[in-house]
Amino acid sequence: MKRVYNFNAGPSAMPLDVLKAVQAEFLDFNHTGMSIVEISHRSAAYQDMQDETVGLMRRLLQVPDDYHIVFMQGGGSLQFAMHAMNFLKRRGGYLNTGVWSDKAMKAASFFGDVYEVASSKADGFSYIPKADTFVVQPDTDYVYMTSNNTIHGTEWHGYPSFDVPLFCDMSSDFMSQPVDVSKFDFIYAGAQKNIGPAGVVVAIIKDSLLAQTKEDVPVVLQYKTYVEHDSTYNTPPVFGIYFINKVMHWLEDNGGLEGAYRRNVQKAGIVYAAIDGSDGFYRGHAAADSRSLMNVTFNLPTAELEAAFVAQAAERGLIGLKGHRSLGGCRASIYNAVTEEGCRALAEFMEEFRKNH
Amino acid sequence: MKRVYNFNAGPSAMPLDVLKAVQAEFLDFNHTGMSIVEISHRSAAYQDMQDETVGLMRRLLQVPDDYHIVFMQGGGSLQFAMHAMNFLKRRGGYLNTGVWSDKAMKAASFFGDVYEVASSKADGFSYIPKADTFVVQPDTDYVYMTSNNTIHGTEWHGYPSFDVPLFCDMSSDFMSQPVDVSKFDFIYAGAQKNIGPAGVVVAIIKDSLLAQTKEDVPVVLQYKTYVEHDSTYNTPPVFGIYFINKVMHWLEDNGGLEGAYRRNVQKAGIVYAAIDGSDGFYRGHAAADSRSLMNVTFNLPTAELEAAFVAQAAERGLIGLKGHRSLGGCRASIYNAVTEEGCRALAEFMEEFRKNH
Repeated sequence: MKRVYNFNAGPSAMPLDVLKAVQAEFLDFNHTGMSIVEISHRSAAYQDMQDETVGLMRRLLQVPDDYHIVFMQGGGSLQFAMHAMNFLKRRGGYLNTGVWSDKAMKAASFFGDVYEVASSKADGFSYIPKADTFVVQPDTDYVYMTSNNTIHGTEWHGYPSFDVPLFCDMSSDFMSQPVDVSKFDFIYAGAQKNIGPAGVVVAIIKDSLLAQTKEDVPVVLQYKTYVEHDSTYNTPPVFGIYFINKVMHWLEDNGGLEGAYRRNVQKAGIVYAAIDGSDGFYRGHAAADSRSLMNVTFNLPTAELEAAFVAQAAERGLIGLKGHRSLGGCRASIYNAVTEEGCRALAEFMEEFRKNH
Repeated sequence: MKRVYNFNAGPSAMPLDVLKAVQAEFLDFNHTGMSIVEISHRSAAYQDMQDETVGLMRRLLQVPDDYHIVFMQGGGSLQFAMHAMNFLKRRGGYLNTGVWSDKAMKAASFFGDVYEVASSKADGFSYIPKADTFVVQPDTDYVYMTSNNTIHGTEWHGYPSFDVPLFCDMSSDFMSQPVDVSKFDFIYAGAQKNIGPAGVVVAIIKDSLLAQTKEDVPVVLQYKTYVEHDSTYNTPPVFGIYFINKVMHWLEDNGGLEGAYRRNVQKAGIVYAAIDGSDGFYRGHAAADSRSLMNVTFNLPTAELEAAFVAQAAERGLIGLKGHRSLGGCRASIYNAVTEEGCRALAEFMEEFRKNH
């Protein structure tokens, strides 16, 4: 069996130790005599596992007591609609820093008024706007942001603060670094970047926000429903939650979020150095002060060279380096599970490719 | 490693051959050098797998060309809302045969008028109503039914027919027998009974129905979105779809849906015989002509005996025999993956328990 270096943007690389642990007990979960996909979500075996998962996440992220952690389905795209369906009463403000915040704002406009608190859209989403450009209108219910912009490769370094609740789509840098959860009223993240397979969303919701849920929201689309039923209003995505459990253990065994952050800084440094030391052959898309630790986006001198780069990299076992179809260019996603060894292999290949072209 | 006899109602038993196949390639899907949970949903490796899954399902079920098959998230509970959100314009009729049709009707009432075309609710959902009791009101957009009632253990044998589109929640007997898909305009099924893990719903939708989608439905909650984007409008639940692929292969290798039906008749016969031959010690909940091949529901003389039965069965490796909390009693769910050997073991235990009490 050959394993590749996986730079996919999501679904993406998962820790090898976790994959092996899942594989080893796939026919017999925790001595139940059943696979994890065969156990009842009403069983103690399931509930214990879910409770442990929430507990591990709460401890790793230091989630305050007045927040609930729930698991949901439907991906980020359902959250783009749901946050507004539940909480947009008068006006929603958006920090528009990439394709996904743009989509969230558009989806939210179905439910009420939306506007940009700040935006880098006119500049190709190449940077994170500065606080002195923020304009919050009267009667704003919340400000919505995307902590890391997967497609354009920018990331907030330090979070803004407002007089209204702050919502955050943390999908692509969730659990990649310590975060002060108390700055937010609502955080959500699709699992399929740093913590698990596609098909499960984690939401962290402040109790005081929940109390402000709009009337007349279908029960299955209310956050309250998931909180009140402890994520088992209906059958939860058991396998995904179980996989997250394993990743939480892996994080705890490897220095927690401080350890993850240290490794991620180190890894991103290796890849950005390959860009910055290339005499302009590789050009980073993101402004220097807005660079993401998760998604490194760059261009080569021509689209032909970019195609050759992606193809030759794949031959060398460096997979998933093509940029998102909406931006083009190249992208290396280096989430928690991508190793420093993988980043070094990429940097070496970048150097070699540059010399040959 | 000890495997139990798993009579869980869902999530439930899966074919051992499928579990082994998933386990064997969990670190390296189809020679990609990545786990199935690590591959991009925009890759050829993923698309080929999804296409094959749809093709296998279409062949096994003989789905006509003017129907699309899509994969969604959110479980049956989201479908309870979505079918009405998309198609309830004037009035929705419901064949109310169990807890889930009752919930679907309630969820749909959020979006418009609903009424019972027929109901067995007043009789504890113990039977499937006869066609001569059906009343379809004017301006009815569709009639909605549940083909198998997981909790009460009844199942439609032969499907009704109306002048309006017929919708069917087939969650708990999907792919357990041949079905004439052309009788329906819309079929959906949560995977976690007969075909896969929790977290993925299959929907089979007639093109002519899709054209009647209501205006003003959020994009992520329109069936059209999933059809037009071939289930990849957003990241699909990759692992669940992959697992379904393996189950479709397993079905095809084992006589297709005719083979499954033959085995299911045989299996149910064994368990119902244990009830009918018990001199009234075990009492079936379902009327004889409405008995489910998937969920066998029964009572013992007292609640104490039922608790003892469930506990002693579990000690013998017969798991999941407690009835649903809303009905009580006992239930043996004997989906496709439950073996005849498992049903015989249950019947033998039932006989032994009866003799000892």
